[in-house]
Amino acid sequence: MERIYTTELKEHIGERVRLAGWLHALRRLGGINFLVLRDVRGTAQVVVDTPEALSSLDGLLPETVLTVEGVVVAEPQAPGGIEVHAPVFEILSPVRDALPFSLNKPEVKAQLPVFLDHATVGLRHPQKRALFRLSAGIMAGFRATLNGLSFTEIQTPKLVASATESGANVFGVDYFGQRAYLAQSPQFYKQIMVGVFERVFEVAPVFRAEPHDTIRHINEYVSLDAEMGFIRDHRDVMAVLTQVVRGILAHLQTAYAAELAVVNAVLPLAPETFPVIYFPDAQELILQRWGEDCRGEPDLAPQHERWLGGWAKEQFGSDFLFVTGYPMAKRPFYTHPNPADPAYSNSFDLLFRGTELVTGGQRLHLYADYLAAAAARGYTNLTPFESYFETFKLGMPPHGGFAIGLERFIMQLLGLENVRLATLFPRDLNRLAP
Amino acid sequence: MERIYTTELKEHIGERVRLAGWLHALRRLGGINFLVLRDVRGTAQVVVDTPEALSSLDGLLPETVLTVEGVVVAEPQAPGGIEVHAPVFEILSPVRDALPFSLNKPEVKAQLPVFLDHATVGLRHPQKRALFRLSAGIMAGFRATLNGLSFTEIQTPKLVASATESGANVFGVDYFGQRAYLAQSPQFYKQIMVGVFERVFEVAPVFRAEPHDTIRHINEYVSLDAEMGFIRDHRDVMAVLTQVVRGILAHLQTAYAAELAVVNAVLPLAPETFPVIYFPDAQELILQRWGEDCRGEPDLAPQHERWLGGWAKEQFGSDFLFVTGYPMAKRPFYTHPNPADPAYSNSFDLLFRGTELVTGGQRLHLYADYLAAAAARGYTNLTPFESYFETFKLGMPPHGGFAIGLERFIMQLLGLENVRLATLFPRDLNRLAP
Repeated sequence: MERIYTTELKEHIGERVRLAGWLHALRRLGGINFLVLRDVRGTAQVVVDTPEALSSLDGLLPETVLTVEGVVVAEPQAPGGIEVHAPVFEILSPVRDALPFSLNKPEVKAQLPVFLDHATVGLRHPQKRALFRLSAGIMAGFRATLNGLSFTEIQTPKLVASATESGANVFGVDYFGQRAYLAQSPQFYKQIMVGVFERVFEVAPVFRAEPHDTIRHINEYVSLDAEMGFIRDHRDVMAVLTQVVRGILAHLQTAYAAELAVVNAVLPLAPETFPVIYFPDAQELILQRWGEDCRGEPDLAPQHERWLGGWAKEQFGSDFLFVTGYPMAKRPFYTHPNPADPAYSNSFDLLFRGTELVTGGQRLHLYADYLAAAAARGYTNLTPFESYFETFKLGMPPHGGFAIGLERFIMQLLGLENVRLATLFPRDLNRLAP
Repeated sequence: MERIYTTELKEHIGERVRLAGWLHALRRLGGINFLVLRDVRGTAQVVVDTPEALSSLDGLLPETVLTVEGVVVAEPQAPGGIEVHAPVFEILSPVRDALPFSLNKPEVKAQLPVFLDHATVGLRHPQKRALFRLSAGIMAGFRATLNGLSFTEIQTPKLVASATESGANVFGVDYFGQRAYLAQSPQFYKQIMVGVFERVFEVAPVFRAEPHDTIRHINEYVSLDAEMGFIRDHRDVMAVLTQVVRGILAHLQTAYAAELAVVNAVLPLAPETFPVIYFPDAQELILQRWGEDCRGEPDLAPQHERWLGGWAKEQFGSDFLFVTGYPMAKRPFYTHPNPADPAYSNSFDLLFRGTELVTGGQRLHLYADYLAAAAARGYTNLTPFESYFETFKLGMPPHGGFAIGLERFIMQLLGLENVRLATLFPRDLNRLAP
């Protein structure tokens, strides 16, 4: 008999069906035994109404894998109004050891390190599963939106000969006796590939050897990168990013409604165009509204971002706010200055509910500008940049792009307290397994 | 004026339009100057018919980035029957250096190392661009087919505490004073995630420190991985793989016809079900047909695979052939044996035009079987397997999966002579850049 999913039971009332999944719970209620079977889509209540059926479960603990053949019965008192009666079980994988924490309670009750140590089974909890389904949905929405805008997907190397942006915070690799590094970002490659495809995106891991032990740092994460050519300036990039964010949210709403419900997610307010504030104007606003004078500082503090986020929501009904024109001093060397105000840049951050979610901007595209920028930063050895710079010497259009951290997106979307909860198997200062 | 693409010119005859792209070629024909402009979709011939226009191109070499505003004219003698007249150029990025090799000939004429040294610009050649568009199409077709079959996308860590399958051929990483490794495959993680999503896939880089300098080896490649639970045995996996291969080819045919034409690709014969031969039967066939006795050998040689590939095409009209039941001795420890013939395994290779393209099979799913398999292989230290084994102790269904190497798929599809030509920026024994 073909297996059906628990969510399909309602279409089979009165029929004998076959389910497969995990023993989610075994409960004795008023003299009757109920087995709750969990599959990837939901759960089903099975009434263990014969001694044979009950004895076939003897000694089996939760997470035992089994199939059930039984009759689908409408039963108003059962969860979802449906039960399976007269079950015959086949045990595919017996479990006789206790779980490190329970998976059949509404929430996982475990300290974070304990949960992470046993994530291989902890991720089976319906809430965790829903969360990482949303993660898949974000990737799918990102790709679908960009494919619709004529972007081409690329996969660029993660083993590189030199650090992308600076020598710090890279992991070293023994590469056949040579020194290699793990790519901190696909920045150089995605720019190079604008010369080939004009518009490119990549979904891939990046590696940051930052020795920070915070709730927002992990050392390997998934970066959603895009880069596009023939732009006027960063505003064209921001327009595409706005479409991407809205495309992702629309995809979640249509294709992942069940998962959003499981994790009680409130989708953000994302108007057709997101409000924009210029960096020095943001500093003025902070002074006038909240009385803090941060004018002249090269960056915004987290509290500043929270204030601005609240202001955008109140003034524009938007959970998203672009801050543009960050000072050149705080941006990487390939950043394009604002031609009208060259101490500031054609770059932006996108704040989501008052926290930075995306960084992007226009890049330099002229070879001479790269040489000048490298000299201004005091880069004396240009050998690591040879191939990168050659690309600009041989013709690159004005271009720009952005990068979204997948795990932080999930974290901010669901209001999680730690980015590790948005990562299947996080890597941090102290954790390399599982 | 909004920019249009070269492929859209035919819809604008008689109008003034704006194009943007690269100076592909500048030609003097019978006293008239022609500029060929290349954008991401094609090329356009521009007649440089005024002295002002000609002088604005003074000293500029191929790959200069520019925009052209001009009038679209139907001209039967022009390539594609269309020309742009009365151009006004705007130079976005002037090129005054010669290219390492020409990009405006039908093929790139460069030795492989020279091409790879300058891949950052060499990939702009229309043939190379088409090839890597197909690569994006394969990834998209892979994901679309699996999403349609209820698979969930995952992203698993590439930094791992221990080697996946054996201690050999892994790259070591300095991880905050600890020793880490780069994942050779997502094998353990994709199996673990079957416990969460039942069916999963991943598209991500894998790293193999194999010191082989051959036309088929690179040290970082993109692996298209899938894994699925609640199978009867490997035949369910093969059925999904067949759908995946056919789904990818159908996607290329419908969405990438132009690119297939540019690279002269002949799509393979992929019948609804692929022929299957059992490993010992394949050895018998080789003896009877080609007189070579390889019975008892644990693997097939490349010549054997070519023979079998030719036989499948001749007998079944298929460019694909499943060989099942490889001897257990040659398969990894997590491989499920054939219950009826335990020296052989429930595994398979998929040959494509006589070369292995995909490896897959059923895995062990019972904890006791893992302990026994580890003991049989003489693994004395089980600490690296602790989390992996815990997953099976706590309930895993019968499952299996497969992995396709993206670059080899392209290589075999297009009959390329070297896998490096199917890789944007290949990594090998001697190459870490660009």
